[in-house]
Amino acid sequence: MAHNFDHTISLLARTPAALDALLRDLPEAWTSRNEGENTWSAIDIVAHLIQAERADWVPRVKIILEFGETKAFTPFDRLGHAREIQGKSMGPLLDEFAGLRSENLAELGRLNLRPEDLERRGRHPSLGTVTLSQLLATWAGHDLTHLHQISRVMAYQYRETVGPWRRYLGVLDCHGHSQAA
Amino acid sequence: MAHNFDHTISLLARTPAALDALLRDLPEAWTSRNEGENTWSAIDIVAHLIQAERADWVPRVKIILEFGETKAFTPFDRLGHAREIQGKSMGPLLDEFAGLRSENLAELGRLNLRPEDLERRGRHPSLGTVTLSQLLATWAGHDLTHLHQISRVMAYQYRETVGPWRRYLGVLDCHGHSQAA
Repeated sequence: MAHNFDHTISLLARTPAALDALLRDLPEAWTSRNEGENTWSAIDIVAHLIQAERADWVPRVKIILEFGETKAFTPFDRLGHAREIQGKSMGPLLDEFAGLRSENLAELGRLNLRPEDLERRGRHPSLGTVTLSQLLATWAGHDLTHLHQISRVMAYQYRETVGPWRRYLGVLDCHGHSQAA
Repeated sequence: MAHNFDHTISLLARTPAALDALLRDLPEAWTSRNEGENTWSAIDIVAHLIQAERADWVPRVKIILEFGETKAFTPFDRLGHAREIQGKSMGPLLDEFAGLRSENLAELGRLNLRPEDLERRGRHPSLGTVTLSQLLATWAGHDLTHLHQISRVMAYQYRETVGPWRRYLGVLDCHGHSQAA
């Protein structure tokens, strides 16, 4: 399927409000628990999305436009989300994510990308050659992979509570875990 | 983990707004496409949630309160969501889901359940004995399993578009599909 830039923007623009509606003021029993050692809670995931807004998407768009394949992207620090949390609760983190996303989409708009720009190539430090189009599609896919993860992590908290229904809830059998992007 | 009734209600109360923020006016390329034959699109899933509000949760609570284990729940029609769609677009379906959820939570409130009521038992047509507590927890888990499914189905539409990043997006490796509840 060809990449439709407007469809990508439509999704990116909605994610902050969707997470806000789901997570703001939700009891910490849902948002601060994870799936066990070295796994993430919903609050960790929101902090990771903030960090990606700062370091990942628009900065990489600019590297492609300025340097093409001659300069690899800065590797993304998958554990950097801990710095974003720093004792903050969910509400301020959701505000921060929404603000950064809005600024980043405005910045992307100011770049006035033409259709041919989407084919420009950059260099990912481990994946090699990628296109601007793939980068933008991945930004949207990254939102979805973490919405998927949040729903799984929260469902995990009820894995015993649902009793025999456990076998009917597909989310409790999910092993599609996310990795670095 | 003991079942906390208020935590379950907190989640149930938020799902309609979360789906609304994510899906309303999103291009149909995201919401009407599925994962292949005999799979569901986001619009199918919202229609399924509507049908479950009508037929599944509060009606089953009432069967437990009135009949205990002497009367099995009416089996849920997993394909009944097609009747709910009937040419409707996403907007009216989201409105309908939000209205039904709100009515059902109000109805649940009117039942004035006491902690000991949560231990009352009912009979699921295929799972056998279940408790009211498990039924309510499953209502919340069912929201999460379908939020998980929606994020997976939408991400699937970009499985090629993301290019080499595909391997980093856990949602594209998810096989935790939902079944009847």
